[in-house]
Amino acid sequence: MKGDICTAVFLPEGKRAEFKRGFSILEAAESIDLKIESACGGQQKCGMCKVIPTGNLSKLTQDELRLLTEEEVEQGYRLACAATIQGDVRITVPVESRIGEQRLQIDGIEQTVSLDPAVRKYTVALPVATLEDVRTDKERILERIKEVFGLDLEVEYGVYKQLPGAIRDGEWTVSVTVWNGKRILSVEPGVVRHAYGVAVDVGTTKIAVYLLNLRNGEVIGKEAIVNPQIKYGEDVVSRISYATDADKNLERLQTSVIGAIEQLIKDTCAEVGVETRHIYEIVVVGNTVMQHLLLGVSPKYVGRSPYCAVLGSGDFRASDIGLKANVNANAYLHTFPVIGGFVGGDHVSAILATKMNESEEMSMLMDIGTNTEIAMGNKEDMISCSCASGPAFEGYYIKHGMRALSGAIEHVEINPETFDVRYRTIDEVRARGLCGSGLIDLLAELLKTGMMDSTGKLNTEIESNRITTNKDAVEFVVAWERETDIDSDVVITQRDIRELQSAKAAMRAGAEILMLKKGLKEEDIDVFYIAGAFGSYIEPENARIIGMYPEVDLERVKIVGNAAGSGAKLALISVEERTHAEEIAKKVRYVELAAEPKFTRCYMLSHYFPFGGTLADVRR
Amino acid sequence: MKGDICTAVFLPEGKRAEFKRGFSILEAAESIDLKIESACGGQQKCGMCKVIPTGNLSKLTQDELRLLTEEEVEQGYRLACAATIQGDVRITVPVESRIGEQRLQIDGIEQTVSLDPAVRKYTVALPVATLEDVRTDKERILERIKEVFGLDLEVEYGVYKQLPGAIRDGEWTVSVTVWNGKRILSVEPGVVRHAYGVAVDVGTTKIAVYLLNLRNGEVIGKEAIVNPQIKYGEDVVSRISYATDADKNLERLQTSVIGAIEQLIKDTCAEVGVETRHIYEIVVVGNTVMQHLLLGVSPKYVGRSPYCAVLGSGDFRASDIGLKANVNANAYLHTFPVIGGFVGGDHVSAILATKMNESEEMSMLMDIGTNTEIAMGNKEDMISCSCASGPAFEGYYIKHGMRALSGAIEHVEINPETFDVRYRTIDEVRARGLCGSGLIDLLAELLKTGMMDSTGKLNTEIESNRITTNKDAVEFVVAWERETDIDSDVVITQRDIRELQSAKAAMRAGAEILMLKKGLKEEDIDVFYIAGAFGSYIEPENARIIGMYPEVDLERVKIVGNAAGSGAKLALISVEERTHAEEIAKKVRYVELAAEPKFTRCYMLSHYFPFGGTLADVRR
Repeated sequence: MKGDICTAVFLPEGKRAEFKRGFSILEAAESIDLKIESACGGQQKCGMCKVIPTGNLSKLTQDELRLLTEEEVEQGYRLACAATIQGDVRITVPVESRIGEQRLQIDGIEQTVSLDPAVRKYTVALPVATLEDVRTDKERILERIKEVFGLDLEVEYGVYKQLPGAIRDGEWTVSVTVWNGKRILSVEPGVVRHAYGVAVDVGTTKIAVYLLNLRNGEVIGKEAIVNPQIKYGEDVVSRISYATDADKNLERLQTSVIGAIEQLIKDTCAEVGVETRHIYEIVVVGNTVMQHLLLGVSPKYVGRSPYCAVLGSGDFRASDIGLKANVNANAYLHTFPVIGGFVGGDHVSAILATKMNESEEMSMLMDIGTNTEIAMGNKEDMISCSCASGPAFEGYYIKHGMRALSGAIEHVEINPETFDVRYRTIDEVRARGLCGSGLIDLLAELLKTGMMDSTGKLNTEIESNRITTNKDAVEFVVAWERETDIDSDVVITQRDIRELQSAKAAMRAGAEILMLKKGLKEEDIDVFYIAGAFGSYIEPENARIIGMYPEVDLERVKIVGNAAGSGAKLALISVEERTHAEEIAKKVRYVELAAEPKFTRCYMLSHYFPFGGTLADVRR
Repeated sequence: MKGDICTAVFLPEGKRAEFKRGFSILEAAESIDLKIESACGGQQKCGMCKVIPTGNLSKLTQDELRLLTEEEVEQGYRLACAATIQGDVRITVPVESRIGEQRLQIDGIEQTVSLDPAVRKYTVALPVATLEDVRTDKERILERIKEVFGLDLEVEYGVYKQLPGAIRDGEWTVSVTVWNGKRILSVEPGVVRHAYGVAVDVGTTKIAVYLLNLRNGEVIGKEAIVNPQIKYGEDVVSRISYATDADKNLERLQTSVIGAIEQLIKDTCAEVGVETRHIYEIVVVGNTVMQHLLLGVSPKYVGRSPYCAVLGSGDFRASDIGLKANVNANAYLHTFPVIGGFVGGDHVSAILATKMNESEEMSMLMDIGTNTEIAMGNKEDMISCSCASGPAFEGYYIKHGMRALSGAIEHVEINPETFDVRYRTIDEVRARGLCGSGLIDLLAELLKTGMMDSTGKLNTEIESNRITTNKDAVEFVVAWERETDIDSDVVITQRDIRELQSAKAAMRAGAEILMLKKGLKEEDIDVFYIAGAFGSYIEPENARIIGMYPEVDLERVKIVGNAAGSGAKLALISVEERTHAEEIAKKVRYVELAAEPKFTRCYMLSHYFPFGGTLADVRR
């Protein structure tokens, strides 16, 4: 300490601040941009800015004695806003009192994201109303927030109904939930810190919900179910057609997906004990059609050339779109920007999760689902397309196909000598059917063992009791009835193979067209991302054997799981990531496969296992 | 014309512009800030910028031939955006093509208001979508509006549902309704110019609705009915108590007032042939409690010291507060700022209409209603108070009291010699009862003729068959049964007089307290405004005789009718007037009469006709 100037060293970083005696620890920390939690804005109300200082400090205040436990006082804890610095000091800032960068592990992709959610809570002490100060409750709260936090806010209509009660119940101290630095979503009496959000991936076939704590960015729960819209059509094209058939249909589709999300949120919250009224924001990603249906906006023109969406990104009051149950009454809902045609918010989100758009490396991302989206490029330039792969790999239209549930055969090997089959089921119980990864393994093994040729035809000339003919249809028996939990063998039929062949041909043809458009080959791809809910479980080598994706070196292949969901989580906890998503949507050029002259030929050749030619063949 | 420089003279003003050859007439007009209507932003799409030029001009364009009638072409009409100036010209701008100041006559107060409504319509031609331009409909429209009009807009959720259809039905030309330069409320195919708004005065007893054309500021219709909330309580205090009694009650009060407004809008629109979907904004004024009840926000604390409102001014989606029928689905609703206690938006609105807050003159404004608000001051300083005058002068609690409908006695004279009564009824039909102005005349005449003394007692010693006793109650017969349309005489009872006495005492006491607070006397008042729906019909001299207001010279008294409604109209057609309203609410200091020590004495003395003393007496 020199004269009136004190030095404070903040630990564990060792950051140093110098300033005049009498400043609070909070002010000293702010002067060097070290962020300490404080919901009340340094008013000794919230007790969040706990630190452990040593050196010459002011005495404990009454507020500190009230807000710290006896144990904390003994351990030397102080409130950073209350303790003023009277000489040179050293201050330990514990992790729980810090606001800072969060390193988040998101399904196989590790991203460093600065925690910056749209929803924040502020605690303020209001001046008490008197006959001399008869400002309205609204003015009182807005002016105070402006004063303390510098925010110019608007108030959601519903909040006015809570306002007078909350202010008086909280004895003129309230906690205010603010969305995007713009709107007050809720006012609660006293100090309340809970703030949660939900990231939703609306797939054509599956809906996944992730519950996140917006105060630390942690994923604290997740749930998924089949998209109930499936009863109105299995793929996006049939849903567009249903939606445009009759006025009521669009509403039906919207209601069913919203009901499913509400239920998933309820279940997730119940599991971890979160009150649903503390859910203030929902970030939704889905393909263009799914996002339109969720919003109740007609996807009619998405399905017609030139394939224009009505909207991509948007912020809505959840209640406006009918999402009212199991979230705060004034919760907001954010949808992702779209690229074009069916390439929607989920694909933008998957790209966001991989950050391939910021990389020097040439990457390809294949997001496998009922609609498979593929992106290719690097920081310079990116293109993408959408493939109508259908739900075959999700088990639909496959005789013994099923989702990845208990009893599903998820891995298959065939002995090339004896043609005997070894398989593994989920939960290692008796077999009930075949899921996506099992189907891919099975195709690859049938091919390797010569039980199936490169055109996809089952080889009936091989002597094995596993090749059978059932009502004129050739089948391969994967599991005998005695091993199964259903009253029959688990088989794959020649027809099943044709379905899967079409699905993989659609994906592969899309990838080939993108390579053609960029004038690149397999060997130019530095990183190949496989995404999609079932993508996490597939054997990359087998997928390559059947030609699901181009011949990329296996060490360059990265399985990134539900990357769309991961991007949604990133956007939920960081508004900056939403800006990145907008940049991606603007940057990525959309390729409409139907308008590509080479597509049909490419699609035909892609039916072969692994592929019916080379790029040179396609170019002809 | 000198070299390349042309001169254009705009008529009839004779305004002169000089600029280079080749500019359009629209550009020339804009260069000297002469405003010509144009919804399409000069794109030769809307045909609104018709002018009659003479001199050297470019040839008629294809668009002009399409947008002008043959007759117009013959008369020399051109589109200002299409015709370019090739030499010196003279241009007549017809009234219908002008945007400018409007001089509006509003119920006895003439105000010059610059037409600047929150709701405006813009017509834009959008670039047609192609496979090379697959922007979303939302981006397409927002980017185009930004380009042409420089507006950064957000889109109301409901608009997305109309968007794809409107764009394609309008063949990529749409008309966009924008609220406050911020939000798109509607998108319609092609060129649509209709835009209407509604100003509403929600009184405790009466609701009045005015329909205005937002394109020219004209009032094109009005309707009024009794506030249906009256069945839940006649005055604000009883409505607060009903509202806070049970949860459902607040909702009941809200629903009833909203239903009434919806009905009034429907009737008004039907009468003048306006489509209700073209009503985009509603401006509401009312006392604090009425505004809270309309919004469904509890007025509990408005009625308790220190009499704080929850909110005053606000902008809401009308549908949020439940006002959905007979207006555009995305219409907005604006409420007025409040001063304090019961002095609400209606009083701010009345002050706005008189502009007394901008004047050098010392003014007093008495807005007579079930709650009577009084303001006093000038541009330096203003104070106001609210008096619980009750609905007696609106005919409630008066034996033969009635509203100002057909058959109501609206004017009374009593012959001082014969005590004979001459009266006039509304529509000059047989008498059915007494309305406010009739009651005031009657009291004044009873007083002048000695039939009633200064304490309000009817003089039973006077020999006249008009003074009768009916079941021990003294009455004065105004109209004999044979002259009436009811099966009895029309009378005023001693009890009626007591009711009216209390009402006028409340008003007068409020006025006296304000004078006391400012240290001023009757003679210091330069202008005395009498406002209120029934205020328009009263005889100022008689009102002064009974002491309803202080002894101000009659030539200083101005009857301004429903000034609250007038202020609401001003705010509806001019956002600047809304800013003025905010300034008024901030400027005017609220005086809580209940907290004034002199009030009780003042109120007692005010029961006398005209008044029981002098200011000196009150000061004692």
